[in-house]
Amino acid sequence: MKSDDLSSGIDRRALVSNLVLLPALSTALLSSPAQGQTTLNAPLASWNERPAKQAIVDFVRATTQQGSPGFVPPEDRIATFDQDGTLWVEHPIYNQVIYCLDRVPAVVAQKPELRNVEPFKTVLSGNREAIAKFSLSDLEKILVATLTGMSVDVFEAEVRKWLESAKHTRWNRLYTELIYQPMLELLQYLRESGYKTYIVTGGGQDFVRVYSQRVYGIPPEQVVGTMGGTKFDYDKNGKPFLTKEPKLLLNDDMAGKPEGIHLMIGRRPHAAFGNSDGDREMLEYTGAGAGTRLKMLVLHDDATREYAYGPAQGLPATKVGAFTQALFDEAKKNGWIVIGMKNDWKRVFAFE
Amino acid sequence: MKSDDLSSGIDRRALVSNLVLLPALSTALLSSPAQGQTTLNAPLASWNERPAKQAIVDFVRATTQQGSPGFVPPEDRIATFDQDGTLWVEHPIYNQVIYCLDRVPAVVAQKPELRNVEPFKTVLSGNREAIAKFSLSDLEKILVATLTGMSVDVFEAEVRKWLESAKHTRWNRLYTELIYQPMLELLQYLRESGYKTYIVTGGGQDFVRVYSQRVYGIPPEQVVGTMGGTKFDYDKNGKPFLTKEPKLLLNDDMAGKPEGIHLMIGRRPHAAFGNSDGDREMLEYTGAGAGTRLKMLVLHDDATREYAYGPAQGLPATKVGAFTQALFDEAKKNGWIVIGMKNDWKRVFAFE
Repeated sequence: MKSDDLSSGIDRRALVSNLVLLPALSTALLSSPAQGQTTLNAPLASWNERPAKQAIVDFVRATTQQGSPGFVPPEDRIATFDQDGTLWVEHPIYNQVIYCLDRVPAVVAQKPELRNVEPFKTVLSGNREAIAKFSLSDLEKILVATLTGMSVDVFEAEVRKWLESAKHTRWNRLYTELIYQPMLELLQYLRESGYKTYIVTGGGQDFVRVYSQRVYGIPPEQVVGTMGGTKFDYDKNGKPFLTKEPKLLLNDDMAGKPEGIHLMIGRRPHAAFGNSDGDREMLEYTGAGAGTRLKMLVLHDDATREYAYGPAQGLPATKVGAFTQALFDEAKKNGWIVIGMKNDWKRVFAFE
Repeated sequence: MKSDDLSSGIDRRALVSNLVLLPALSTALLSSPAQGQTTLNAPLASWNERPAKQAIVDFVRATTQQGSPGFVPPEDRIATFDQDGTLWVEHPIYNQVIYCLDRVPAVVAQKPELRNVEPFKTVLSGNREAIAKFSLSDLEKILVATLTGMSVDVFEAEVRKWLESAKHTRWNRLYTELIYQPMLELLQYLRESGYKTYIVTGGGQDFVRVYSQRVYGIPPEQVVGTMGGTKFDYDKNGKPFLTKEPKLLLNDDMAGKPEGIHLMIGRRPHAAFGNSDGDREMLEYTGAGAGTRLKMLVLHDDATREYAYGPAQGLPATKVGAFTQALFDEAKKNGWIVIGMKNDWKRVFAFE
């Protein structure tokens, strides 16, 4: 696709120089719907008229118009979306990790022997600096203690309750309000074009499923995430139930993403969206298929409305959501489209 | 549901005594469509007018009619079907096992060191009696050698090719022709009623996915089966591909069925269909949900048109597809409906 070449070539200087032309351009295009015209672009209302949006529209047109050489039959239309940093805010720390930290007091109340054991002791102390320094092994202990050992029904109820009250400190809003409005519109646009939309996340599959339908319009069976085993058993009344086990079936990140896609979907997506090195293999796998395929990466370059981190293109390196220069270079080489939040999105959140 | 009570109480004697009344009854009911009436029953054309069919129709009515106390919102309508012995013939041996045995010569051609190693040596000898005596460990070696170690694309092509020519010896027909027509109609009827239909099989997930859309109208992502891991890698040209690994993620049988349902679907079915002890936990799990749930078991009691085996109700015990007396008793106790092939189905196969 020609627009791939255009957009993958974007670098920071080009973004800045294009800005000069943007206000006039977007005003001209925005006025079209007001003049009563119906255009294919209309559904992506929060996207600026730039190559990223054009690439989406071109892709949908190429794969859904009968007679187009890139036509994809409706039953084969699969689009996969990373979640953290692609559909909702992932900074300063993944929301699910906050959930796990928030759950520690309840877990310790049930298992008092953990009170003076690390890393639980530090979590209870509330020492944010010490918590920020947790090793992967510390985090793993917290994840196992808070995400496994209960029935799937109890887990779902706990996550649901947490989502109703826990808030992001920067915006003082529920995490489920911190969804990127342009990506919601993209999900909707693809679904209206016959695409089945999936989340493919390194986060916990069962965690994301609790709110995926309500927040993204994506049913639980279309959430592919990091998967743990469950164990079937009977309660004292003989009623069957499933317990979440501390057994990792698949770490749905990096190479695990195409593996998870094969496991859960059984075929290759025609469109894939990510924002970090964890999505690289998913985009490569999508791109390796025949015909027209759309591969896009969200670049967080908007410290004012959201965050700016990278370290691609000189943005600050952070622990969460690494968009490395190597990924940026691979995107450019392979014709993947980079979505610059700052310039491609008219607004970031619905509440703006 | 009242009809559950009726039908679960069926035993062999009742089936026999009901037969006396059946011809007159079915003629009367069959004549209705010819008289130009449109009834809700019409879609299940190969089902006799008996409690099993009535239970299906009652279930669909109860769960899909607005205002019904058992109403299920369209997005929650999930129905799960075992495959072997429930949707297609499983005798005298599971079709996928025949595939694996048929693949042994090709595997040995690639790995000549296996030629004189058991169990491959015996498979190559063609000694059916010896093959029939294989232990589980022998079978496992054959399954690993023929189902793993190749790319997912190569595997799919091999299965596709085999399905085009391999035939069942009794009927001299392709395995994909040996689908139960009444069950195809049931799948179709449920889908038209807003149900998402899933296969939940002890067979290999990747194997069944090759033909599920074409044969059952069920897309690959709605096949839950025994799952193996895959490994993401790059070929010498840098193109990514997935290799099927000899790593069992989930044995989708017995307790593995509800575990597989949770993993792949993330919620409890409202209807579940099986035919053997391997489906017991799936039906229990389905039945443990609130509201109206349909649980049905196919009983193979028709040696003339298909097979008769059990050992429920005095049918001969076999290696494949055990419908034990204990399962029969549990069905009766829990109000699960037993579908007797002989009396409930007007025809078994489309080609009859």
